[in-house]
Amino acid sequence: MFPLNAWYVAAMPDEVAQAPLGRRICDLPIAFWRDAQGQVQAVEDFCPHRGAPLSLGFVRDGQLVCGYHGLAMGGDGKTVSMPGQRTRGFPCARAYPVAERYGFIWVWPGEAAKADVNAIPVPLWHAQEGWAYGGGLYHMPCDYRLLVDNLMDLTHETYVHASSIGQKEIDEAPVATQLLPSGQVITERRMGGIHAPPFWQAAMTANGLDPQAKVDRWQVCRFVPPSNVLIDVGVALEGQGGFDAPEHAKVASVVVDYITPESATSCWYFWGMARHFKPEDTALTDAIREGQGKIFAEDMEILRRQQENLLRWPDRALLKLNIDAGGVQARKIIDQMLAAEAPQG
Amino acid sequence: MFPLNAWYVAAMPDEVAQAPLGRRICDLPIAFWRDAQGQVQAVEDFCPHRGAPLSLGFVRDGQLVCGYHGLAMGGDGKTVSMPGQRTRGFPCARAYPVAERYGFIWVWPGEAAKADVNAIPVPLWHAQEGWAYGGGLYHMPCDYRLLVDNLMDLTHETYVHASSIGQKEIDEAPVATQLLPSGQVITERRMGGIHAPPFWQAAMTANGLDPQAKVDRWQVCRFVPPSNVLIDVGVALEGQGGFDAPEHAKVASVVVDYITPESATSCWYFWGMARHFKPEDTALTDAIREGQGKIFAEDMEILRRQQENLLRWPDRALLKLNIDAGGVQARKIIDQMLAAEAPQG
Amino acid sequence: MFPLNAWYVAAMPDEVAQAPLGRRICDLPIAFWRDAQGQVQAVEDFCPHRGAPLSLGFVRDGQLVCGYHGLAMGGDGKTVSMPGQRTRGFPCARAYPVAERYGFIWVWPGEAAKADVNAIPVPLWHAQEGWAYGGGLYHMPCDYRLLVDNLMDLTHETYVHASSIGQKEIDEAPVATQLLPSGQVITERRMGGIHAPPFWQAAMTANGLDPQAKVDRWQVCRFVPPSNVLIDVGVALEGQGGFDAPEHAKVASVVVDYITPESATSCWYFWGMARHFKPEDTALTDAIREGQGKIFAEDMEILRRQQENLLRWPDRALLKLNIDAGGVQARKIIDQMLAAEAPQG
Repeated sequence: MFPLNAWYVAAMPDEVAQAPLGRRICDLPIAFWRDAQGQVQAVEDFCPHRGAPLSLGFVRDGQLVCGYHGLAMGGDGKTVSMPGQRTRGFPCARAYPVAERYGFIWVWPGEAAKADVNAIPVPLWHAQEGWAYGGGLYHMPCDYRLLVDNLMDLTHETYVHASSIGQKEIDEAPVATQLLPSGQVITERRMGGIHAPPFWQAAMTANGLDPQAKVDRWQVCRFVPPSNVLIDVGVALEGQGGFDAPEHAKVASVVVDYITPESATSCWYFWGMARHFKPEDTALTDAIREGQGKIFAEDMEILRRQQENLLRWPDRALLKLNIDAGGVQARKIIDQMLAAEAPQG
Repeated sequence: MFPLNAWYVAAMPDEVAQAPLGRRICDLPIAFWRDAQGQVQAVEDFCPHRGAPLSLGFVRDGQLVCGYHGLAMGGDGKTVSMPGQRTRGFPCARAYPVAERYGFIWVWPGEAAKADVNAIPVPLWHAQEGWAYGGGLYHMPCDYRLLVDNLMDLTHETYVHASSIGQKEIDEAPVATQLLPSGQVITERRMGGIHAPPFWQAAMTANGLDPQAKVDRWQVCRFVPPSNVLIDVGVALEGQGGFDAPEHAKVASVVVDYITPESATSCWYFWGMARHFKPEDTALTDAIREGQGKIFAEDMEILRRQQENLLRWPDRALLKLNIDAGGVQARKIIDQMLAAEAPQG
Repeated sequence: MFPLNAWYVAAMPDEVAQAPLGRRICDLPIAFWRDAQGQVQAVEDFCPHRGAPLSLGFVRDGQLVCGYHGLAMGGDGKTVSMPGQRTRGFPCARAYPVAERYGFIWVWPGEAAKADVNAIPVPLWHAQEGWAYGGGLYHMPCDYRLLVDNLMDLTHETYVHASSIGQKEIDEAPVATQLLPSGQVITERRMGGIHAPPFWQAAMTANGLDPQAKVDRWQVCRFVPPSNVLIDVGVALEGQGGFDAPEHAKVASVVVDYITPESATSCWYFWGMARHFKPEDTALTDAIREGQGKIFAEDMEILRRQQENLLRWPDRALLKLNIDAGGVQARKIIDQMLAAEAPQG
């Protein structure tokens, strides 16, 4: 269902600012909080005393205190204290490797010994200067793999997002898909000499380009295991090199899709956009976030209803067309990860 | 559970005016839409590409276009086109026989080869001049057979509809039930020399009769397989012949109950009234629809709670009294239809 | 799950004033109403005719009349009459022993022959003069035993009710638990020379004591099988004898917790407070009810979430600390009652 030996985005930093956060990840209820040094900690969300969720409690001196009878827990899952009790023999709660990196809190729901915080990929917009990021969080009523499929086949933009980023030429442009040795999957499409759709016209205007000018548009979707998708998107004035055009002749962004399974039929969707123009313009960041939020909300209903239909017809084989190759390859990688975690023999 | 080789009312025509309609019938999700000629088409509500419900899409050139990636389907369940794809080898969606007749859209959820559109019964109010019809649609939280029972035993009017059409004399009048060779079941009751209840007093006033006059009242319930009930109801001035009284001395209607299973515990209830007086008076049609809608909504809570109770006590045998004979006979017909559809041997 | 051969509080008297009341108790849907003498009657909430809940009907001449087709039932579960029917052969509904005692309606969901109304315990505040009572009813989303646990370990007050009755000294005071031969369990705690928390300061003021004075506080929790908890609580001026202090030097109450299982994961919580000061002051009764209602509502969310967690981890053993001894002993009594009711051999 979900690979466990992997880093998943668990939360945005401000979700674990003061109060603890309870969130189910890969069907594991986990309590997150910040210790006295401000480091995020994560343990299973079950008090060893009477089973109440620890995340309903509060933080005191960097420990997570159960809101029912006051058991205090450390980030290692050991009970530190409880009023009137000797706690040395208390059973431990499971602690999860957790890290705050690149604007997100990440958790490793699998074997702790295998967790290497350096394996969290450094995003381009953190590695380079000149980028700005804005985004949000949606709870999606579907298997996380349906959302990966969605993002690895952008022909849906023409239909689901017709009024913003969709346009007929997406359907008409051929798509090329490749599997990289790293397990990443890239599926890309280029459209030359077209008019930009409304979302990109607004971005051109914001960046000082004539929104009516003909452009070359690109979409390069990159699946990053276990379940994230980063998409290079943008438009450049026609004939300037597209993705490789000089800065002044293009508008380029990365659509960020960090997808974290919650259960077999739901997932957390940390979406956002990192842009390489006007990074200091926070009003523009807000405007893009609002626009992107509306666009991505359009996917929610169709994914919910697709999920319901697939549950109703579990044995029905779906088509795997050329446009689906990105999702198909991504699922193969996920299946390999699952097989590697399965008990032997 | 439900006979499939039968015509069921699927929708009212204006429900499939512009946009497609998705509706579950006999546990089968079905998408309805109008083709270029305005003919209603019906296919299973599952896109062969990725399983999204086709009914979330739109109609273009008479074809149903999936709202996710643009697959276009014809009324025969064959994919007509999809951007950038050769669709000849695509698997077919199941197409359902469908017809628009007598003010409703009908669907045949069973074997298409057995569907004969001429088997849809012609209602009296379409066969004759001088009738008007008004009605509505309710989603009922019960097995469709509980609603058939409800309508084949009108003694419930005294209790559930006490303020409108109920009256003590219903309970007191004997009921006679007969099974016709056609599989129809008739259960009828006549009450002589009584005062009309409020609903019928209003109808008498609307028709120029003294609402305080003594009347003869009739209720002739007709079960029409697989699951519909048509009820001749009315009052005539006392001693004028009741149902057979001359037009000027009576107020007569047909209560129309087209009942279509949705699932094992829910159904669609197309209710209405066809009346044989003042057919041109559309304000009267609206007033009757509103009054009938309120009355029929009174059944909803008791049927929901009856359904819950029966699910809790599935093995409890219910009584089958004389007043229940109509429902009991109707269920026998339904059971015969089910047996005829069951696999042999 | 629940002992059946026991008296449970089913309702407050005014819940069965005019209309019938339907309530599920120990997973048994039961209809309650008052007969012509005002005596409460209780039968299973299932009409023998067609299975509708009898509690949806009405009372006529002291009989419960089904709101669907008018079957009238007596308190013995026998059908008394039905319009147009001979009812002698109708199957009986199950009748439950029921009694109105000490301000509540009690029901015995088990074997009627074993029900002895004199076994209903007489509460202190009915046996003596000078008491006043006020309370309410909550529907709790948890196994009734989790609520018993909650009330037999008041260290949770420090955390769940920090702003009203909680205080640090509860955690610090040792607790003593004993099992009485009657099957009652007592767990008690005494705190000497402390400052009263806000709720008790208000009670001291209402009773003419200085709210800032140092006090001795007591909590004596008494589990009364099958599932009720009565708690002697109060504060006395320091050194005056605590619970045994003279009336003028203390404020004493009994917290009343009548707990009745609804299902495996829900229960009815009849909570209240009987106080032994200013019994004639109805405004004070209302004020205490409002304050107590707010305090007890604070338990609801944590119990709901604890229940969810325990369902998710059904095999996880919980800790049984000294503070949990009251609940642990209470569950042993419940288990003995269940074993006594289990089929032999």
